[in-house]
Amino acid sequence: MVEVLKSTFEEHLPLIESSIKSADFIAVDTEFTGLEKSAKERTNLFDTTEERYQKMKCSMSEFTILQIGLSAFRRQSSNSYLATTFNFYLYPPSFGPVDVRFLVQASSFQFLCKYDFDFNKYVYDGIPYLNKPQIFAVKKYLHARAMNNGRQRVNEVDEDVLQAFCSRVAEWLVQTENDQSAVLEVADEEIPELEYVKSFILRAELRERFKNIWISVLEGQQRIVRISKLSKMQMKNAMENEQDKEKLLDNLKGFTRVFKMLKGGVPIIGHNMFLDLLLMYDKFHEPLPDTFEEFKKEMQNVFPYVYDTKHICNNTRKLYRDSSLINNSSLGMLYQSLSSPEGQQFVIDTPSVVHATDNYKGKSLPHEAGYDAYMCGFVFLRLSHILTFLDVKSTEVRPCRFSRYLTEMKPYRNKINIIRGNVHYVRLDGPDPPSDRTDLLFVQSKDPSYELHPLQLIRWFSRYGTVDVQVTNSQRALVATTHYKCSKDILKAFRSHQNISVTKYNKWKHSPVIRKCMWAGAILSGGACLLALLSSRKKD
Amino acid sequence: MVEVLKSTFEEHLPLIESSIKSADFIAVDTEFTGLEKSAKERTNLFDTTEERYQKMKCSMSEFTILQIGLSAFRRQSSNSYLATTFNFYLYPPSFGPVDVRFLVQASSFQFLCKYDFDFNKYVYDGIPYLNKPQIFAVKKYLHARAMNNGRQRVNEVDEDVLQAFCSRVAEWLVQTENDQSAVLEVADEEIPELEYVKSFILRAELRERFKNIWISVLEGQQRIVRISKLSKMQMKNAMENEQDKEKLLDNLKGFTRVFKMLKGGVPIIGHNMFLDLLLMYDKFHEPLPDTFEEFKKEMQNVFPYVYDTKHICNNTRKLYRDSSLINNSSLGMLYQSLSSPEGQQFVIDTPSVVHATDNYKGKSLPHEAGYDAYMCGFVFLRLSHILTFLDVKSTEVRPCRFSRYLTEMKPYRNKINIIRGNVHYVRLDGPDPPSDRTDLLFVQSKDPSYELHPLQLIRWFSRYGTVDVQVTNSQRALVATTHYKCSKDILKAFRSHQNISVTKYNKWKHSPVIRKCMWAGAILSGGACLLALLSSRKKD
Repeated sequence: MVEVLKSTFEEHLPLIESSIKSADFIAVDTEFTGLEKSAKERTNLFDTTEERYQKMKCSMSEFTILQIGLSAFRRQSSNSYLATTFNFYLYPPSFGPVDVRFLVQASSFQFLCKYDFDFNKYVYDGIPYLNKPQIFAVKKYLHARAMNNGRQRVNEVDEDVLQAFCSRVAEWLVQTENDQSAVLEVADEEIPELEYVKSFILRAELRERFKNIWISVLEGQQRIVRISKLSKMQMKNAMENEQDKEKLLDNLKGFTRVFKMLKGGVPIIGHNMFLDLLLMYDKFHEPLPDTFEEFKKEMQNVFPYVYDTKHICNNTRKLYRDSSLINNSSLGMLYQSLSSPEGQQFVIDTPSVVHATDNYKGKSLPHEAGYDAYMCGFVFLRLSHILTFLDVKSTEVRPCRFSRYLTEMKPYRNKINIIRGNVHYVRLDGPDPPSDRTDLLFVQSKDPSYELHPLQLIRWFSRYGTVDVQVTNSQRALVATTHYKCSKDILKAFRSHQNISVTKYNKWKHSPVIRKCMWAGAILSGGACLLALLSSRKKD
Repeated sequence: MVEVLKSTFEEHLPLIESSIKSADFIAVDTEFTGLEKSAKERTNLFDTTEERYQKMKCSMSEFTILQIGLSAFRRQSSNSYLATTFNFYLYPPSFGPVDVRFLVQASSFQFLCKYDFDFNKYVYDGIPYLNKPQIFAVKKYLHARAMNNGRQRVNEVDEDVLQAFCSRVAEWLVQTENDQSAVLEVADEEIPELEYVKSFILRAELRERFKNIWISVLEGQQRIVRISKLSKMQMKNAMENEQDKEKLLDNLKGFTRVFKMLKGGVPIIGHNMFLDLLLMYDKFHEPLPDTFEEFKKEMQNVFPYVYDTKHICNNTRKLYRDSSLINNSSLGMLYQSLSSPEGQQFVIDTPSVVHATDNYKGKSLPHEAGYDAYMCGFVFLRLSHILTFLDVKSTEVRPCRFSRYLTEMKPYRNKINIIRGNVHYVRLDGPDPPSDRTDLLFVQSKDPSYELHPLQLIRWFSRYGTVDVQVTNSQRALVATTHYKCSKDILKAFRSHQNISVTKYNKWKHSPVIRKCMWAGAILSGGACLLALLSSRKKD
């Protein structure tokens, strides 16, 4: 794994670029500052895909990414892949018109504590990033030369240092002939990571004040500035100023430059990646669009080939029914299982994966974005091999090109897993599937005098698993569960309940009574949402 | 200075309490996650006090405090004060219904980087805090025993560890007679700082599952739990459970318990403390009320005696006119000046200040909340002495009690400094002063065909200082400046401008023309606000 920070970003960029350009596929993972903006954005089993998108958009446009992992996989010999993994810390820049306000969910930072996340690296040395409107604003700002006013620079440069430096230049100019050169050092007082910003401001300030000088920076020595006194003839050249702006802009774009490299059409792999896609779109591309349809359309332009290993896993479980290989679709468990001897031998000739660097060897670093990205790529490769050769006689299995895997994996392409929604996945390159929550339960009060209370229903039902309850009126409610077994257990337990009857929801029998008021009632969720109720009541 | 973290909070609490209870006055300072929620909340020279409050309320209810400093000053001998300073790191808790979402302004975290702020200490070991509605919600949650559902606990405890532990208890119960006791150890897998939360959940879970056991924690060994099998007679006692809840609640209240200690009427000192007061109110007391009037009224109940050293300094400058003692009202400069030999001897017999601990000696740690609080208290003491004896013959100056200072300082009590507003201060215990922006400028286009453009005016005027411009229509604008000198310079520079006339704003002459549309035009600010324009245009 290569850790990439603001201070080492430029140095690593060539390796990042070559790894991406030569990759067969790239796995990604993000860590972020929060999940739900408020209880209102909490997802539930009744959510349509559009509703889900609107909730996630509302949350994800306020939270941000603090770490992103990329693992570039490349077939290097007949049956071995090289995984080059990068772990980037990201921190939003503040420069000129851009000063991002982002939301933090207290529990999300605390979650990261469990995995030893380094918050100092994050704030002190996180790589900047900009989406398109932010790039536009910075360009406009640089163009307007709006920087020639002290108050605006307050966060970027120490005004006293700047003034002292300008005085030195003024003194020197008086004593200097035209066409003479001098080397002046920029004071060292400020924090080093702002060097690009600083040197730009310094030069902009000098140019503004002293019309008759020429300024250049000695290569590799950001703090040494060469100043030449110009003859009038030489004073028209503004080219260097433009180069300066480009350099500063590049520096502020930071990770966005890497994101651009991913756009070439290389397969992008993630695990349960709906949220990752929304975040990347919003932070590195453009603010999330108004409708899910627009998002899907534009996402296709950005990443035409996307694979979600959680979706693949959930939809191929039946294939390995005789085996205990895939019992759990969490990334860590999948990786553990598929990297075990059983996982390796499930279908022979599975390709091996070699790390490009040594620091992941024998280690497990869950929830480090780089490591999660690597695990995700590994899982994708193993699943691809298994699914390609599952029904092929073992005597006929041969190491194959990556393109053969892609052909086999086509049914899973651009399908993104959804948890706790009314569908199990969304499709980026076409219409979403119809709702597959066939295990809805219909609850009815047996006596008109007995009113259904959502909290009571939640208390009863959530003993059997995760449930969401929607009371449509005082006599009727719908219950969604995540598992068929949970629905079955509830049906059994309440077969002869004294106050309520619970039956399978029957579209023909219970509609249109229910359909009519389907979206009218408040939705309450078992587990996490009981809290939501308590906390939202607090605000009443 | 005593650094107080979550892990050392209980240990330091007795010293904190005794220092507060015996203090003559307490200086406070906060560091926070951001300043302005968006450009809309940017303050300007036209703001009335109510407008200012609404803007600040909007921002401060979303940002939060990450460090708070308290410096308790106590007169310990005839002319010497002991300063006991505490520097608390604060991080919002996430427990049950409380999972705070707070806003971060990217530049505010970066500002803290300049002063070596430790973000790991902040997130990993920050002390929790709760305001009243949050305390109410947690109590309700605990009362509802809502914790007996796996999904809700997801951030607080490792479900597998809990289940494994319960299985051990179940096995043991089968083999155990009534009235027998056993000692079982809680597994050690989770992060240590959650120990109170963990042990509470563990016991709540055990009690819920096994009705016939009695659970107690061995003193000082949070991870050892004693379990007794009860006879039916013993099973009614729920007292211990209540004690448990109290302990957990106390732990979650964290710094709010310290805040409560401050409420006894001890003088509270801050420097430019409007923002500090709003933040403390919102985070440790109650959500900020709807109107400034309500805020002031309730603030009086919380802190009846508040002194702002920036206000005191700005309003006594004339008194030292012959001296260069108070040239600058920034905290660091004030401290430097007043602790210099000149500051010490300005009025004889000034009291000395001794640190209770050694770690601040010979150090300067600006923007560490504890150190800023200490400097603020020091400045208050020196200014009090100077103002008390300024007009007293030096032969008659005597070391005095602190109460004498308070009598002299009464004119400054409960007056809080305002920067960039239409008044220089607000009064917490009475009506605010009338607007004192007498240096408003009135701009008029000389030719009806020449339209005023706010950006152009800003460009022209901000060369002379900080200005806010309000264009009321295409022919007229108002300009507010922070200094009389700036207004004077603008008047001079534009005396014979070809397109515009600039005059002093005359309430009688220019009203009602202007008054009518006074609040209609957009307000643009020089300096920082030029950026606001650029960035808000971006969103159009």
